[in-house]
Amino acid sequence: MSINKLKYVLQHADNALIMGHRISEWCGHGPILEQDIALTNTALDHLGQARSLYQYAADLYNGLPDAEKADFFSSPVFAGLQTPVTEDTLAYLRDGWDFRNVLLAEQGNGDWAYTIARSFLYDNYTVLLYTALQQSNDERLAAIAEKSLKEALYHRKWSSEWVIRLGDGTEESHARMKEAMEERWSFAGEMFIGSEADKAMLAEGAGADLEALKSQWSNRVNEVLTEATLDLQPADAWMQTGGKDGNHSEHLGYILAEMQYMQRAYPGMEW
Amino acid sequence: MSINKLKYVLQHADNALIMGHRISEWCGHGPILEQDIALTNTALDHLGQARSLYQYAADLYNGLPDAEKADFFSSPVFAGLQTPVTEDTLAYLRDGWDFRNVLLAEQGNGDWAYTIARSFLYDNYTVLLYTALQQSNDERLAAIAEKSLKEALYHRKWSSEWVIRLGDGTEESHARMKEAMEERWSFAGEMFIGSEADKAMLAEGAGADLEALKSQWSNRVNEVLTEATLDLQPADAWMQTGGKDGNHSEHLGYILAEMQYMQRAYPGMEW
Repeated sequence: MSINKLKYVLQHADNALIMGHRISEWCGHGPILEQDIALTNTALDHLGQARSLYQYAADLYNGLPDAEKADFFSSPVFAGLQTPVTEDTLAYLRDGWDFRNVLLAEQGNGDWAYTIARSFLYDNYTVLLYTALQQSNDERLAAIAEKSLKEALYHRKWSSEWVIRLGDGTEESHARMKEAMEERWSFAGEMFIGSEADKAMLAEGAGADLEALKSQWSNRVNEVLTEATLDLQPADAWMQTGGKDGNHSEHLGYILAEMQYMQRAYPGMEW
Repeated sequence: MSINKLKYVLQHADNALIMGHRISEWCGHGPILEQDIALTNTALDHLGQARSLYQYAADLYNGLPDAEKADFFSSPVFAGLQTPVTEDTLAYLRDGWDFRNVLLAEQGNGDWAYTIARSFLYDNYTVLLYTALQQSNDERLAAIAEKSLKEALYHRKWSSEWVIRLGDGTEESHARMKEAMEERWSFAGEMFIGSEADKAMLAEGAGADLEALKSQWSNRVNEVLTEATLDLQPADAWMQTGGKDGNHSEHLGYILAEMQYMQRAYPGMEW
């Protein structure tokens, strides 16, 4: 087992967890009840994907030699653990610099258009990612991808329809969708910039080819933007990076403070 | 030592901590640099008062018989402590329902007028409170009150001047100050509604007489509101309560999640 596989699985797990957490903030605040429910279900899908991936990551971590375990996470909590790491340990007891999600996922919800734009860029990525990972030579990863793909396809349909509805809607909805897409765009590139783990897993035949994904992604995103009467975004735009290496925006700290409070205040608590 | 004294000291400590934390959120966001610095210094004053009070509360708690200690805080963290409680334990390891601050302190900052209105109502209370507690038969409480009074007098001067400046300012500043004062008003009454600890400490000669404070408070607040050309607020308005008994608004949970993250993620951490 390579340590890169653990990092790779965590990257995807963290994306799903943080996206799910952000989207769950809409619960009870959606513009209409039907969409509130749709978005909350989407949040649950993301959390479900995160869970499967964390379970795998926990198994990978627990299988590491002790010396490698000690160095892997910077939080001192891990050094003192008396029990094997679980999905919950990974979600609730790591500190920010051990999270590997892309910066896109942690950005604030903003208004409805910003939320849609973030989901749209991300959902287009996960559909391609999970499609590719179905061919992974890692059977467990391939199985998670197969299950997750069905959900990602639905997410992509939903967010694409909203981009079109708002972009090709009223003057105001167009202006707001345009602004949101422009702002979110600078966070899209990081998904396709290979981390060390991305490169190692691709070489091993376990990971997805991000270069290949990127061109497919651009084609489909541009198709939808065109249908939505929105400007195409510049392919060579400067892109925000850092999340995959644990260098996060200010947002992540607030997310973790809120999300991890229960497990930190009541260690080992169960329902 | 009565357990009510511990509760009483915690009430005041928690008010100071939570006011200080809220005000500290303005650091770097003040409307002009001079006021940013003034407000940040005020936050530090509140935190300093909180510290003195928590040190006293920690001594009171550590002096309790073991049986009373076990029941006093609901958080399971306290049951497992290997070392005496300190100011830090009390600030960073209690959960929300063990906080006894008034709801006024934890309300969001809102705009500048809301922040001023909250401080104005609170500062007018603490000046009277600390003046009264200088006569406490508890020498340590009297000493803390004497030291804190100087700061509270400055805070009251500062917030009163702002109420007048905004109330008797432009049409917009008047309207916004008026709105803020009306909204904050419903949180003012709790300061003068005696908890069990308030009543017990008054009876023992250690605490302040809230009834007496209230009429002095109303007189002075009304004087300033009049000078500020703002409406007097109804003395018999319905008032929010619960904080002194640990029943808090949603705000407190978010404050604690952020404020306590460091000590919970890195237990026992020192600078």
